[in-house]
Amino acid sequence: MRISELSARSGVSVATLKYYLREGLLHAGLATSATTATYDESHLERVRLIRALLDSGGLSVAAARRVTDALDTPPPARHDLLGVAHGALSGGPLSPAEGSAATAAAALVDALGWHVGICAPARAELERALAAAAAGGLEVPARDLTAYARAMHKVAEVDVRGVPRDSAAAALRHVVVGTVLLDPVLLALRRLAQEDVSSRTPS
Amino acid sequence: MRISELSARSGVSVATLKYYLREGLLHAGLATSATTATYDESHLERVRLIRALLDSGGLSVAAARRVTDALDTPPPARHDLLGVAHGALSGGPLSPAEGSAATAAAALVDALGWHVGICAPARAELERALAAAAAGGLEVPARDLTAYARAMHKVAEVDVRGVPRDSAAAALRHVVVGTVLLDPVLLALRRLAQEDVSSRTPS
Repeated sequence: MRISELSARSGVSVATLKYYLREGLLHAGLATSATTATYDESHLERVRLIRALLDSGGLSVAAARRVTDALDTPPPARHDLLGVAHGALSGGPLSPAEGSAATAAAALVDALGWHVGICAPARAELERALAAAAAGGLEVPARDLTAYARAMHKVAEVDVRGVPRDSAAAALRHVVVGTVLLDPVLLALRRLAQEDVSSRTPS
Repeated sequence: MRISELSARSGVSVATLKYYLREGLLHAGLATSATTATYDESHLERVRLIRALLDSGGLSVAAARRVTDALDTPPPARHDLLGVAHGALSGGPLSPAEGSAATAAAALVDALGWHVGICAPARAELERALAAAAAGGLEVPARDLTAYARAMHKVAEVDVRGVPRDSAAAALRHVVVGTVLLDPVLLALRRLAQEDVSSRTPS
């Protein structure tokens, strides 16, 4: 299809599609002349993913670029998928300095007995999130943090159960898309559940 | 204290503090002349909260303004706290048109037997998040959505248990700050737990 049809079918303007092409978010079409190219269903699917990552996922263009780069070059070993996905989403692994400062996250992971690599990006994310909460006047008691962690482990069990086992590329896509696009679903469920719990709590 | 000291203690520039004052995020100081005012600990605490909402919470200035407005005028009835907090965070309740379209959220809430108001902002949030996931190529099976919901109910039980019961203002602050600032903590825990589950899953 021409870029005008890709625009019509995706609902994304031609100018924006050209921006995605320039930024490397969208793979090039098949050149049919010096100035025109043709696009296929893989482009349409990618454009929809880009919109979802930028809009619902709230990712920056740079982060979305890391995600699409990761999708285009999946790692050979299946157990490296999560590291690639989380690295693309978080902006990279911990620096050694951050790693040694990540004490609250390390203490929690140790206490829970979780198997998590020492340089996992999620350790840095947790440490930064706890530091930001503390800066905003919210200290999370260790007991509550443990309860939150156990609940999110249930979430992760569902996450991992759904990963397709046929190809590394499909698995990576599922992990990245599932992580970004289900985050808002989980947070909305948290608010709905707060209402339910609150309505059952005597005031 | 003078605005220069408020700036030094909060780490926020004087120009930015004046912006917060103009936008109504920060309450005015006590005027000591036509051009100067004095600030106290309540201003310092508020500036720290504003930074947390904007930085870690990722809120827009308009959303942060709704949060601080809500904090300054807490509702008289305790059970209205969550509605005010969620309304401030989500941008408002469902419109009637959105409400009638929110079928996936309604079906889930019904199936779980949760007590959630028909116009709760979180219903709209869930509906939009599910629609965005579907647009990005991710349909969540009903069985998985139910499992996610049960896990987030555990999170909400911890959330509501921690709400202070002494004053409506303190309770509202806890709910708003806890919701915004713990979202990133929960999402980081999800990623850590994914690593643990994945490491225990034979590849």
